[in-house]
Amino acid sequence: MIRLSVDLMGADAGVAELLKGLYLFHKRRLECTFLLFGTRAALSSELKRYPLPKHLFEVVYAQDYVNSDAEVFRTLKSGIDTTMARALHSVVSGQAQGVISAGNTGVYLALSRFILKTLEGVFRPAIISQIPTCRGESVMLDLGGNLDNSSKVLVQYALMGKIFCQKVLGVESPSIGLLNVGTELQKGTDALKEAYDMLKHQKGLNFYGYVEGNDISKGTVDVVVTDGFTGNVALKTGEGTMRMMSFMLNRVFRSSFSARCAGWIAKPFLQDLKAYFDPRVYNGALWLGVRGVAVKSHGGTDSIGFSHALETAYDMVRINIVQEIQNTLLQQISTSE
Amino acid sequence: MIRLSVDLMGADAGVAELLKGLYLFHKRRLECTFLLFGTRAALSSELKRYPLPKHLFEVVYAQDYVNSDAEVFRTLKSGIDTTMARALHSVVSGQAQGVISAGNTGVYLALSRFILKTLEGVFRPAIISQIPTCRGESVMLDLGGNLDNSSKVLVQYALMGKIFCQKVLGVESPSIGLLNVGTELQKGTDALKEAYDMLKHQKGLNFYGYVEGNDISKGTVDVVVTDGFTGNVALKTGEGTMRMMSFMLNRVFRSSFSARCAGWIAKPFLQDLKAYFDPRVYNGALWLGVRGVAVKSHGGTDSIGFSHALETAYDMVRINIVQEIQNTLLQQISTSE
Repeated sequence: MIRLSVDLMGADAGVAELLKGLYLFHKRRLECTFLLFGTRAALSSELKRYPLPKHLFEVVYAQDYVNSDAEVFRTLKSGIDTTMARALHSVVSGQAQGVISAGNTGVYLALSRFILKTLEGVFRPAIISQIPTCRGESVMLDLGGNLDNSSKVLVQYALMGKIFCQKVLGVESPSIGLLNVGTELQKGTDALKEAYDMLKHQKGLNFYGYVEGNDISKGTVDVVVTDGFTGNVALKTGEGTMRMMSFMLNRVFRSSFSARCAGWIAKPFLQDLKAYFDPRVYNGALWLGVRGVAVKSHGGTDSIGFSHALETAYDMVRINIVQEIQNTLLQQISTSE
Repeated sequence: MIRLSVDLMGADAGVAELLKGLYLFHKRRLECTFLLFGTRAALSSELKRYPLPKHLFEVVYAQDYVNSDAEVFRTLKSGIDTTMARALHSVVSGQAQGVISAGNTGVYLALSRFILKTLEGVFRPAIISQIPTCRGESVMLDLGGNLDNSSKVLVQYALMGKIFCQKVLGVESPSIGLLNVGTELQKGTDALKEAYDMLKHQKGLNFYGYVEGNDISKGTVDVVVTDGFTGNVALKTGEGTMRMMSFMLNRVFRSSFSARCAGWIAKPFLQDLKAYFDPRVYNGALWLGVRGVAVKSHGGTDSIGFSHALETAYDMVRINIVQEIQNTLLQQISTSE
C-alpha cells in the first residue's frame, strides 16, 4: 500500500483547491493513503468540507509553512517546523514513500536535498517532467533545479533521463538529445561540446546528438537534456505559447455571429485538442536524484492539475524510480572504476 | 530610392524559391531596386524565369558561396569572393543600403561584424526580431548572436531593444523585461542580478523587471532581453510549439467524417488564426549593432517568408535604424562620461 505525504500549504491555488484535487485523486486511487501537512488555522476548517475516510487520511499540523517569497538559506536554518520540512522528514522516517508540494520551488529543492539527501554518485539532482509532442510524449530535464551545469552533470542527466523515460514512458532504448542553438558540431558552449563528446562514447546510450528548440515539440528525441536555466525557460515558453494559441482560438471563434456558430460546431473537436495540450495533465515534476520521491506541483494549478501531480508521485513510488536510478548510477560507477 | 543587396545562395530553400520571394516583394514595392548576388551556375538559368525589369535589378556573380556547413574561421580567411561577403561589401561601398541573406547564420554574423564593423560603443551585436503575443507584437533579443553575455552586454541589449521597439512597433516608452527562471529577486545567474540592478537605475528606461518564459507570448513586456543561447532556444521552442498545435489542429479535423465537416465550417476562422501565427510573417531578423542593415532570413523559408524578410530589410533602411541606434549609444556614452 502506497502512502503519500502532501504539503497543502504555500501554493497560490490555496488549501481548498489542493484539498479538492486530493479528493479527486483519492476517488481514482482508493487504495492510496495520505499524510496531510498544514497549519491548524488554514487546514482544520477546510478539512470538514471533504468526506475523507479517516483510515486513509492522517493530518499533521505544523507551526508554520514556507511562504512563496521565503529565502532558501533562512528556511534551511529555521524552517524545521514547516509543513514542507515535516512532509519531507516523513519520507526519511519511512512513514510515507513519497512527498508532494505546490509551495516555493527553490526552498522545496533545497530542503529536499538537505533532508532526503542526494543518491550516491549524483552530482546534482534535476527536475524532470513529461512534455507533449507531435509524436506523443517526451521527457525533459533539468527544468530549473540547477542554473550552472558542467558537462559531467549534463551527461549524468542523460543517464537519469534515460531510466526515467524507460520506466515512465516504456521506451526500451530512448533517444537522447542535447539542447543547443544548432545541430552543427561547432555550435554551442564548451560544456555542451564536452558533454557531446562524452555522450557519443557512452556505451548503451542511444545518443542522437544536438537538438534545437523546435525539436522539443517535434518529438525528435525521447529525452531532451539541458541545463536548468535553458530548460526552465524552454518549458515555460512552450506552455505560454500553448496558452496563447488557446486564447487566440477562443477569440477567433467569438469574433462574430458566424464565428460563434462555427465554433459551436467545432467545439467537440477543439476540446479533444485542448485536453491533449492541457498543462494540468502534465503537472507534477520529479526531483530526480534525491533519496525519495519528491514531486513538485505548479503553485497556481487547480484541483485537476493537483490531482495529476499526485498521480505522478503515486506512479513514481509504484515503479520505484529512486531505486532504479540508484542502481544505474552505482553500476555506472563500478564500470568506470 | 532604396537599394537592397540580396544574397541568393546557401539557403535550404534554394535559389528558385528565394527568387520567387524576391519577385513577390518587388510587386509590393515597385520603387525598390536590387543587387542580386549568386554564382553563375545557380543563378543565370533561374533568372530567366522571372520578368524582373532590368533598370531595377542588377546581377553580380561571385566565384563561390558560403555553404551551410562552412566554418566561420575558414570563411573569414578565404571567403572574400563569396556571394555573402560581396553582398556585405556592397553596403560598405554604398552601392546598397541594406543586405539580406538566408545562408549560414554563424558565418553571416561573423562576416557582418568583420566587413560592416560594429557601431561605436557596441560591445556585441545582437539578433533581434518581432514575435507574436496575445497583446499583439513584442521584440526579443539576443536570438543567438552571442552565447556568452555579461551584464553590461545585457544592459546594452535593453537600450538597443528599446530603440528598435520605438521605431518598428511605434511604442513610445517600451517596457523592458529581463528573461529569468523566476520573477523573485534572488533568482537567476550573477550576470542577470547585476544587469537587473543596472537597468533599475537606468534613467529614461521603462524597466519592468524579470520575466519568465511564459511572459514572452503573454506579451507582458514590449522588449524581452536575454542572452543569445536562451533567446535562440526560446524563439525556436515557441515556433515549434505553434507548429505542433497547427499540426494537431489539422489532425483533429481529419479524424472522422464529422470532424472533416466541422473543420470545413471552421476553416475560414482557423485560417485567420493561422495567418496570425504564420512564422513566415515574422521572418527576417536584424543584426542590431553593426554599421549597416543586415537581415537574416530563415534558410528553410519559402517565397512568402523570404518576401517578408525583404520587407524587414526595406523597413529598417527606411526608418534608418542604424543611425538611430548609433545616436542613442553615443548619447549614452557622453552622459556617462
